[in-house]
Amino acid sequence: MDLNADLGQSFGSWTAGGDPAMLQLVTSANVACGFHAGDPVTMLDSCRAVYELDVTVGAHIGYRDLAGYGRRPLGMSFDELFGDVLYQLGALDGVAHAVGASVDYVKPHAALYDALVHDGEQASAVVAAVNAYDPGLPILGFPGSELINQAKEAGHPVFIEAFADRAYLADGSLVTLTDENAVLDDIDLVVERAVRLATQGEVVAVDGTVVAVRPDSLRLQGGSPGALEMAARVREGLEAAGVELAAFA
Amino acid sequence: MDLNADLGQSFGSWTAGGDPAMLQLVTSANVACGFHAGDPVTMLDSCRAVYELDVTVGAHIGYRDLAGYGRRPLGMSFDELFGDVLYQLGALDGVAHAVGASVDYVKPHAALYDALVHDGEQASAVVAAVNAYDPGLPILGFPGSELINQAKEAGHPVFIEAFADRAYLADGSLVTLTDENAVLDDIDLVVERAVRLATQGEVVAVDGTVVAVRPDSLRLQGGSPGALEMAARVREGLEAAGVELAAFA
Amino acid sequence: MDLNADLGQSFGSWTAGGDPAMLQLVTSANVACGFHAGDPVTMLDSCRAVYELDVTVGAHIGYRDLAGYGRRPLGMSFDELFGDVLYQLGALDGVAHAVGASVDYVKPHAALYDALVHDGEQASAVVAAVNAYDPGLPILGFPGSELINQAKEAGHPVFIEAFADRAYLADGSLVTLTDENAVLDDIDLVVERAVRLATQGEVVAVDGTVVAVRPDSLRLQGGSPGALEMAARVREGLEAAGVELAAFA
Amino acid sequence: MDLNADLGQSFGSWTAGGDPAMLQLVTSANVACGFHAGDPVTMLDSCRAVYELDVTVGAHIGYRDLAGYGRRPLGMSFDELFGDVLYQLGALDGVAHAVGASVDYVKPHAALYDALVHDGEQASAVVAAVNAYDPGLPILGFPGSELINQAKEAGHPVFIEAFADRAYLADGSLVTLTDENAVLDDIDLVVERAVRLATQGEVVAVDGTVVAVRPDSLRLQGGSPGALEMAARVREGLEAAGVELAAFA
Repeated sequence: MDLNADLGQSFGSWTAGGDPAMLQLVTSANVACGFHAGDPVTMLDSCRAVYELDVTVGAHIGYRDLAGYGRRPLGMSFDELFGDVLYQLGALDGVAHAVGASVDYVKPHAALYDALVHDGEQASAVVAAVNAYDPGLPILGFPGSELINQAKEAGHPVFIEAFADRAYLADGSLVTLTDENAVLDDIDLVVERAVRLATQGEVVAVDGTVVAVRPDSLRLQGGSPGALEMAARVREGLEAAGVELAAFA
Repeated sequence: MDLNADLGQSFGSWTAGGDPAMLQLVTSANVACGFHAGDPVTMLDSCRAVYELDVTVGAHIGYRDLAGYGRRPLGMSFDELFGDVLYQLGALDGVAHAVGASVDYVKPHAALYDALVHDGEQASAVVAAVNAYDPGLPILGFPGSELINQAKEAGHPVFIEAFADRAYLADGSLVTLTDENAVLDDIDLVVERAVRLATQGEVVAVDGTVVAVRPDSLRLQGGSPGALEMAARVREGLEAAGVELAAFA
Repeated sequence: MDLNADLGQSFGSWTAGGDPAMLQLVTSANVACGFHAGDPVTMLDSCRAVYELDVTVGAHIGYRDLAGYGRRPLGMSFDELFGDVLYQLGALDGVAHAVGASVDYVKPHAALYDALVHDGEQASAVVAAVNAYDPGLPILGFPGSELINQAKEAGHPVFIEAFADRAYLADGSLVTLTDENAVLDDIDLVVERAVRLATQGEVVAVDGTVVAVRPDSLRLQGGSPGALEMAARVREGLEAAGVELAAFA
Repeated sequence: MDLNADLGQSFGSWTAGGDPAMLQLVTSANVACGFHAGDPVTMLDSCRAVYELDVTVGAHIGYRDLAGYGRRPLGMSFDELFGDVLYQLGALDGVAHAVGASVDYVKPHAALYDALVHDGEQASAVVAAVNAYDPGLPILGFPGSELINQAKEAGHPVFIEAFADRAYLADGSLVTLTDENAVLDDIDLVVERAVRLATQGEVVAVDGTVVAVRPDSLRLQGGSPGALEMAARVREGLEAAGVELAAFA
């Protein structure tokens, strides 16, 4: 099982991305590529830190929207998104290359992540861009999303992630973040859900339904005060349950 | 002899970069990388057009300053410029890759070009970045500049350019653009100077001194109304003089 | 009857906005405020030109999206849009003030214009912002839009515009621009429609229905090659029909 | 004596500007205007907080350089800087207006601040812009700077600031921040210097020279961990010494 978290979300003098200690806990780090966060120096520092710890580098591609941190839906044409994805992949790879690393996988960020669940055109642009960049570059996404489905159809390698600390609906989708019950903060429960996801490939939805999810990666939240403790506990719990932790890419 | 001109200087809905017909006349095209001009779609279109014509792709790296078009001096630390250059090289390469092309050489743009003539620290950052990106990636620059001198010392491949339509001083530097006599617009004279530069490796300075310059490339100006005609005439003149035109990279 | 057109859509070295001669034909000019187009120097030049011709200055507010020219839908919270509108109004007013002018009215641009037809929350943010800025500052918009309806309810002064060169549906909405018949290019027909809109307050929809529209302003398109001729002919036609041309604000 | 500190230096999801408690200690708050920091929502929140506490609002104008936080020297023409200053003043005033506040004074930020000490052309652009915006709007700056000198000559109201925690040279200039002794961190000493500046109008330079400075305002640093404590101690010290604290504007 892979554990992924966001890294390198600073911009210029502004810092974000939580404790660097998080990097000790994950096997994959999503590094922002400059469009929603991440200036080149931050990207360089992130890639260097990731590389030294033998963690894999994910291109955390997002909408060109620094003011909105990539969290705002943006309507884009196929060509625009195709170009923006190639640009971000290349930029991060260029920076990573200078420290001996490289882009190991791709994961969309925030509003782009959400759009790629249902928006077929945006998904096709992202799949086409990643494929044109490198037909073997893994995409990490949400199961059942347009992104994952289209990438599969294109014969492109895909991996899926699950969220031990997010509430699920019976159809396998996530409870939206605007709902007050969207995020679980009971650490014991989150650890239990992480272990069940990793060992049995299932999660209990809000209505009690047991949903089958067979994730390749579990997402660890960063940023919040208790995030580091929860991440550490999840990792301990998985190791205690005999789950082998390793990057998928 | 190589002929280089700028291409792909549009941004979003705004177009710049002169007539695409210019691309038929050059052997190397400097493509903006998004920091001073050049959105990803423009970059993609430029790389495609360049690739189809067997012209080489230059990364036209610049300061992060869309509002100033990269024409304004910007003080940057070594780390910042090192990162910004890597980012731009990677971004253009990523886009170029999708159309079968790649970055063939690097040339600084405008205010960065000027800074790299005298600013040792900025020059060292650019040389270090290009070298970290690819120790074999040619740099095109101004003879005697810090950029070219430091790259040479680092054992990095360098090529130099000359300007048939710019007035030179006796020390081999250019008359600054704020001087009204900085740019020559007499086409016959410019053609003659181009041929002399290409065949004899020299140019006559404003005080009559004959300055030795052995350029690998001649720069053709784009953008202005008569630019295309002058470029065509220069190319014809060089061919008539038996100069073989080919990319240096 | 007022005639409005866009002005000041350049950014830095990139120019846009069509022929300055268009300014001789209109009574109101929509000046971009820096978020989708319009750097401060362009805004200053535009305000100066507008002021000297006794044309009124409209704040052409848009989404913060230079790369997309404000043409891409952007999801924004009430607070974000409220702030962005205030910022743009103030910025243009500050610049206008320096040349003796001021913001005379507000008109949304492109994707924001379209969103404000149906998006109640974005419309409420714009109305609240304009009202907080100046409760007497006129809003120019599309009849029946959320923007106009909410502004009216708030007791805020509103004016509506019509498009002589755009195809209408029977319900008074415009044929979308992706439809090949969306824009009329028969100058005689456009002049006739402009006169009918101005004198009888009606326009013929694509299915023959006569739609009642009582515009305070007619929009003249800029940018395209024939735009200036059409604008001139529309103005002549209106004057020949005895329509008095004057700014609404 | 006025006490000023920076506020509202966040941008989008990134926060900066230190503890809001700092606002309880100052009489003037420098609010970033969106070019080097400060999105409209942050500006709105800052103006609201400032207004509620009866603190005056300063337009903290800076270079258009989010990536560099306005800390990097930028070469600009008179027209560009003139426009950028007007734009920022208007933008902050527009936002401030919505919460009942207004721009009470102007203070340049970081690299612009430094440039205005010696750069006559940039200083003339700033003075011209502030004067065009409002001939009565006070400028806060460094004594002996081009900014202050030119503003005085223009008959524009000026106020000067001093830094109790910065080392001075005998000529009244500051020890540059790259020098390790540039900033004093001995709180007792800083309090003593603040009181001497406020009551006797003088400060001891690094070589022991007593330099005459008659500041209208003392700058309190924010951001660093101990900044709040030092600011509180400085305020207490001034009050204990009988110095009346009040905004200059």
